[in-house]
Amino acid sequence: MHSFELLSQKFALRFDRRHFPEEPATLYDPNEYFLKLGGKRVRPVLCLMGNELFEEIKEDAWHVGTAIELFHNFTLIHDDIMDKAPLRRGMQTVHTKYNENTALLAGDVMLVTAYEELNKISIEYLQSILYLFNKTAKEVCEGQQMDMDFEKMDSVSMDAYLKMIELKTSVALAASLQTGAILGGAGERNQHLLYEFGKKLGIAFQIQDDYLDAFGDPSKFGKQVGGDILANKKTFLLLHALSSSSPEQLKELQLLLEGNDADKVNKVLAIYRACKADEWAVQLKNRFLDEALAHLEDIAVLTKRKEPLRELALFLVKRDY
Amino acid sequence: MHSFELLSQKFALRFDRRHFPEEPATLYDPNEYFLKLGGKRVRPVLCLMGNELFEEIKEDAWHVGTAIELFHNFTLIHDDIMDKAPLRRGMQTVHTKYNENTALLAGDVMLVTAYEELNKISIEYLQSILYLFNKTAKEVCEGQQMDMDFEKMDSVSMDAYLKMIELKTSVALAASLQTGAILGGAGERNQHLLYEFGKKLGIAFQIQDDYLDAFGDPSKFGKQVGGDILANKKTFLLLHALSSSSPEQLKELQLLLEGNDADKVNKVLAIYRACKADEWAVQLKNRFLDEALAHLEDIAVLTKRKEPLRELALFLVKRDY
Repeated sequence: MHSFELLSQKFALRFDRRHFPEEPATLYDPNEYFLKLGGKRVRPVLCLMGNELFEEIKEDAWHVGTAIELFHNFTLIHDDIMDKAPLRRGMQTVHTKYNENTALLAGDVMLVTAYEELNKISIEYLQSILYLFNKTAKEVCEGQQMDMDFEKMDSVSMDAYLKMIELKTSVALAASLQTGAILGGAGERNQHLLYEFGKKLGIAFQIQDDYLDAFGDPSKFGKQVGGDILANKKTFLLLHALSSSSPEQLKELQLLLEGNDADKVNKVLAIYRACKADEWAVQLKNRFLDEALAHLEDIAVLTKRKEPLRELALFLVKRDY
Repeated sequence: MHSFELLSQKFALRFDRRHFPEEPATLYDPNEYFLKLGGKRVRPVLCLMGNELFEEIKEDAWHVGTAIELFHNFTLIHDDIMDKAPLRRGMQTVHTKYNENTALLAGDVMLVTAYEELNKISIEYLQSILYLFNKTAKEVCEGQQMDMDFEKMDSVSMDAYLKMIELKTSVALAASLQTGAILGGAGERNQHLLYEFGKKLGIAFQIQDDYLDAFGDPSKFGKQVGGDILANKKTFLLLHALSSSSPEQLKELQLLLEGNDADKVNKVLAIYRACKADEWAVQLKNRFLDEALAHLEDIAVLTKRKEPLRELALFLVKRDY
């Protein structure tokens, strides 16, 4: 059994190579540039851990992990175009460094390359892995579309927002774990439990992300604290505040959202605190974390095999940076 | 043995159904809209014909054909964004009717759906079909990138242009035929010959397309005659004229390309005729057609089985509309 950190290092060693042909350089250099920006490689490592929960890591898991990471990078390149994001991990996004057409096509060919990598696995697993991969890829697109739709809407229900987070973020984590479980020879029930563990963990992770963006310690949090508030981004905190604040607070909040008050971040944070959005978020996060851990608990393998996943879950959701 | 027309009708009957979920409608309605614009469905029918050249059409060929047509439509949606094209088949393109972000994401999910369709075939063929599909998809992206690069360059060699056409257009036709051959149980040599037939035919087809855009009969040709000339598009004719015209003709041609002469189309056509670009194009087209037919000839099946493909080749390349 290996920890997340160790598998992450091992995966990086394999993944940090050239993934694309040399020519045409105008198409492939942007992809190589983007992959070199790095990342935590959480999803492929979840595949490896899902595999190792049941059996020794198979060669196929490295290919599936690579495909998953290429898919993830494809979504980032295209999402950055859609969000008109200038920076990613502190560096220029592909469409900013090159141009939008190049970023569009580079993303397309990144996705095709993910499928090339998938096609390297044993024929025995190809159909089931491909099925899960396709289903998840579609859901991630649906989540991104819902996210864009929500940005244009005045009000979004908590249920709809949860569904969007599930599709945009959680199912990719859940499916990464399940692909590993498939390769590890897990039965359907164990696969399902591991998928649900990943899905609930993903939601808890997103709640934590929203929380840290508002209440994180600026010296530890990598991004600008209050960025979501400045961008009027719909988050767990904002949706909760909109639905639970008093009429006076609601009026003030809406004025702050419409305007550009110099002290917007602190004033919105004050409302969040006044309607206890911070405490509510911590409780909601812990509820999803507990549900995730209960699913992990139910998986029919020796408890000690589950330790690395349990540690990872606590690490991802309890972090303060 | 069935003709192209008959298989085209049969394919349309199967393909004209809903391909996407109902929700989110903001993502999937654009895709349904685009598929309803129709098209000749040449590529999927080539898959069916490639299959029937060797054996009765298998159920798998309909799935592969569907995947190929979905892939083709994905490239059209994304190419239209890149080319800023307002119309496709006389109707609004997806990014014009909806918006660029929607078109980008709709294209992405169209590609994923193509892979979903591929994953419906018998496991026996999955790996080899997927391999060819991925290789071709990558080449089509490379061709599109080269095309965009060429538009920004002052001069492009005929060899480079041929390579671009091969990647952007021909390999998809060639691979469509080969997927059918694989499903029809063809050996490697026959598969290769059929692929080469499709590749050469695709180039002949593109030469014919460039020729008709310049010299076609306006009453028969669907598009505006001279459209390529007005757009300064690099075509077989323009590249030939640039490399074979006299110094005076070359000077006039370059002035016409830089300016917006009211009679630009006729003046460029006069230069094309003066340097015999029209005759040259017909000869080049026939050379590729002959090479294509020679490959078809060499395929080791009864001559009468080849008749529909031979007829199709002559029809596609001898057409005057």
